[in-house]
Amino acid sequence: MKIGFIGLGIMGRPMALHLAKAGHALFVPERGSLDDEMRQTATVLPDPAAVAAAAEIIILMVPDTPDVEAVLFGPKGVAEGIGPGKLVIDMSSISPTATKTFAEKINGLGGDYLDAPVSGGEVGAQQAALTIMVGGPQAAFDRAKPLFEAMGKNITLVGENNGAGQTCKVANQIIVALTIEAVGEALVFASKAGADPAKVRQALMGGLATSRILELHGDRMIKRTFNPGFRIALHQKDLNLALQSAKELGVALPNTAATQQLFSACVAAGGGGWDHSGMVRALETLAAHKVAQD
Amino acid sequence: MKIGFIGLGIMGRPMALHLAKAGHALFVPERGSLDDEMRQTATVLPDPAAVAAAAEIIILMVPDTPDVEAVLFGPKGVAEGIGPGKLVIDMSSISPTATKTFAEKINGLGGDYLDAPVSGGEVGAQQAALTIMVGGPQAAFDRAKPLFEAMGKNITLVGENNGAGQTCKVANQIIVALTIEAVGEALVFASKAGADPAKVRQALMGGLATSRILELHGDRMIKRTFNPGFRIALHQKDLNLALQSAKELGVALPNTAATQQLFSACVAAGGGGWDHSGMVRALETLAAHKVAQD
Repeated sequence: MKIGFIGLGIMGRPMALHLAKAGHALFVPERGSLDDEMRQTATVLPDPAAVAAAAEIIILMVPDTPDVEAVLFGPKGVAEGIGPGKLVIDMSSISPTATKTFAEKINGLGGDYLDAPVSGGEVGAQQAALTIMVGGPQAAFDRAKPLFEAMGKNITLVGENNGAGQTCKVANQIIVALTIEAVGEALVFASKAGADPAKVRQALMGGLATSRILELHGDRMIKRTFNPGFRIALHQKDLNLALQSAKELGVALPNTAATQQLFSACVAAGGGGWDHSGMVRALETLAAHKVAQD
Repeated sequence: MKIGFIGLGIMGRPMALHLAKAGHALFVPERGSLDDEMRQTATVLPDPAAVAAAAEIIILMVPDTPDVEAVLFGPKGVAEGIGPGKLVIDMSSISPTATKTFAEKINGLGGDYLDAPVSGGEVGAQQAALTIMVGGPQAAFDRAKPLFEAMGKNITLVGENNGAGQTCKVANQIIVALTIEAVGEALVFASKAGADPAKVRQALMGGLATSRILELHGDRMIKRTFNPGFRIALHQKDLNLALQSAKELGVALPNTAATQQLFSACVAAGGGGWDHSGMVRALETLAAHKVAQD
């Protein structure tokens, strides 16, 4: 298939290359930052409008809601090249409510729309092992499925309404942040009570407290390896999205709100670039006690 | 070995029977509630003091800190039968700080002491698959290890100081409660945003949000199966223990405190007997929206 790909950062670049490797023709907009491998692999066109005109399916992988809006509806944006038969897939992590508006506008031009945010990070993107959470019509999902399978592993159509994929991603980020916070409280408590946090973590693995977070992030807290990973500033953005959406929906998320405050405390201490497991440092400040020495 | 076992409830009874099956001689104090199988399996003695006098190792499995204190130091209590060479193992889930005091008093009588609380619930006790978290001297742990192996699977000496096992259990209960709360917030949010919570849970399994809680308790929230399992009233007791110990230690546990309030809201609504996954009902009340129909 002819695939347009817009947003070739640390996530988008390996994803696009997986699609090319699977035999698809790749179209990308001109950027000074395009490297030789990408220029040899893809057809470079002047702007997103030209990419959308040339491709059947246009994939976006950009940082935030305003970036998606600019790429789609700004000057020389994707919308200028959209018509019947075209499919836009937004794989960025953005607002579920804004997603509904964007989808309606693309539908109004005759195009189909899927929101398909991912989790799994840079490693998942490189290894084509991303979790992909999709919202949109079944037919569009079926059409895009071979592309998703070239980039990810656990692929779910969460709902046939646009925004369902973004809603699922928000739910993911809530659980991940709050589980990191839970492991942090438990390890700070145990450490201050005189127990060895490494032994506590080991004793809890395999029981009801087991999680991927206890395994990975618990280990990072004990070993003080706070290089990202996933940066606190990005997770803070995701919880802002959760709290903003919750406000619009009329849902109370008490521990998400409290946990966002701990992320804010880390950012205030200059820790926006720490891995999100570094949230434990805010809890350590509250306890005047560290899980382990930096 | 000659094993005294005090506290033959839904946890203690199967644990004691596993020890008898492994070839140990069992001594239990007289209770009207002893059934025929227990009377045929164990030697029944009049009180805890007589049990402690007859046995080498005395195991306790009772509900709460005051129960342990009464069994150990009340009239005709275990302390009256303790001397050099005796080992007391408290497998109840109680206060880490009170545990230190109890251990010192038993040590003062010449006896050894281990705190060895468990997780895994009734099913874990029946299947001899409990997680056992132990605090106390290495030599006492080595002596008790064959007994632990007859009752459990994941057995860890968390620390050589008494109370380390109880501290680990408190850490376990913090993580379990806060992860249930995290899954609850995520599913209420997703459901109110119009996504199918069952599909959201499925999409998140296998990713970074994966946990035993998302698997088991997430499923209970969606299927509305709130029969225990583990009762909210018991988990509320455990978080009280966490918050009381944290106060003594000078540790702030913000999300544990907030989550305890949600348990309190459930108890106020008559839900002390619900499974702890029923905490989602408190979150649903805050959102005026349910994950699924009861």
